[in-house]
Amino acid sequence: MRNNKPLIFITNDDSIYAKGIEALIEMVRPIGDLFVVASTESQSCMSHAVTLKNPLRAHKMREEKGLVVYGCNGTPVDCVKLGLSELVTSRPSLLLSGINHGANSSINAVYSGTVAAAAEGIFYCVPSIAFSLCSHSSDADFSGSIAYGRKIVEQTLNKGLPENICLNVNFPKLPLERIEGIRLCRQNRGAWAESIERRIDPHNREYYWLDGGYVNHEPESTDTDEAALASGYISVVPLHFDYTAYEALNYMKTNWSDFEKESKITQ
Amino acid sequence: MRNNKPLIFITNDDSIYAKGIEALIEMVRPIGDLFVVASTESQSCMSHAVTLKNPLRAHKMREEKGLVVYGCNGTPVDCVKLGLSELVTSRPSLLLSGINHGANSSINAVYSGTVAAAAEGIFYCVPSIAFSLCSHSSDADFSGSIAYGRKIVEQTLNKGLPENICLNVNFPKLPLERIEGIRLCRQNRGAWAESIERRIDPHNREYYWLDGGYVNHEPESTDTDEAALASGYISVVPLHFDYTAYEALNYMKTNWSDFEKESKITQ
Repeated sequence: MRNNKPLIFITNDDSIYAKGIEALIEMVRPIGDLFVVASTESQSCMSHAVTLKNPLRAHKMREEKGLVVYGCNGTPVDCVKLGLSELVTSRPSLLLSGINHGANSSINAVYSGTVAAAAEGIFYCVPSIAFSLCSHSSDADFSGSIAYGRKIVEQTLNKGLPENICLNVNFPKLPLERIEGIRLCRQNRGAWAESIERRIDPHNREYYWLDGGYVNHEPESTDTDEAALASGYISVVPLHFDYTAYEALNYMKTNWSDFEKESKITQ
Repeated sequence: MRNNKPLIFITNDDSIYAKGIEALIEMVRPIGDLFVVASTESQSCMSHAVTLKNPLRAHKMREEKGLVVYGCNGTPVDCVKLGLSELVTSRPSLLLSGINHGANSSINAVYSGTVAAAAEGIFYCVPSIAFSLCSHSSDADFSGSIAYGRKIVEQTLNKGLPENICLNVNFPKLPLERIEGIRLCRQNRGAWAESIERRIDPHNREYYWLDGGYVNHEPESTDTDEAALASGYISVVPLHFDYTAYEALNYMKTNWSDFEKESKITQ
């Protein structure tokens, strides 16, 4: 008898042991056959880092009907590369990354290993979604994320996604009944304001911890992921990884045109 | 007597000992006062990774008129954060990253620590440029890069850059006299096709090396960075880090409108 469930590839940046990946497995277990490859250590803020200097290891940790789980020593993007190139036995219908402990809205998308894994998924032409919950607690309540995330996954499997696009989904830190619904939105403008903490070690040498706080550069906007989350909605932002700033390119094509035309150095 | 030279912040992802960072220093030494913070180890393919689990260290390696050099144990983005938040004594006019040994055109921009450092520069509102040479040789010829890079830096200091935009500059692997000039262009579409190498270690356990080759998804295009480089030109692409896929957002706003409207789960 043929198994008609779609194959869903799952990864995560908080490690294979995080509550968030368990929540993601619970979210889609009724929908698909799951193939999980995630790091055995936390890989927060690893962005799109790839391991080139060290060999990668992967070992099967669990195998049962509809679920295979591998632990890996790499970054989230390594897990996707190794998983999709080498470990899976057939092509997944969907890649899911998360559920991250902590928001990946706004500029956090740039730093996030969760989002990078979804980006790598679309580089393999697999429709991909990054899920994050706006709570850093290791014991966060994922019940709202599970219920709403399942709706988003079902919609994606039914409708598909535009080519070369992944979804960045953030859940507000609210119980299920207080979540207002889902909003399609754009990435908010903002940045991290760094506060470096300088300390002295027992050997009298200085060292630094990076820390900081998020600064919202457009707190009045209503169509962004930050605005949706602040109003109790789940934010869904379609992302692409063509970094070209087309408006700026057009501006420079005009304002730097002499520079471009006369750019050859003749000796 | 007041020193009127602009302060230029420099970093790199091939390490403080790479020939490429020496070339970058040579490029702009006549133009500015230089403040260098770069990793003491190679940080290739670290993308926008930030070190949160370990403390950062920085030590002054060199100080002379117009040049200060710090070595740091962090990623390129760590070097920018620590450098701009803690180590510099005044605000730089420009941040330069590179010159990377190896191309950062097309999709490489996503993986690149060199480009990520320039991105981080604009998050600090410092105009930023990433420079890369299309040669992985540790002994590459940077003479063309130095001459043309200086022109690009002078133009940027004179004209400024659009807000929230950094430049991604790639130099073809050509001697100075064979470089055709500079082209403003967009990021080429492409991806890495992975070829994972599986090996067995002396303890009979398997491990993997990531490897692969670049696949150009639009080899016929003439307005991209890849096309410029293939024709002997230096490619200059203005980048931004709003990942929102606006066309896809508009498409989904129409095609997912019922889903969005009826998204609240009522119990």
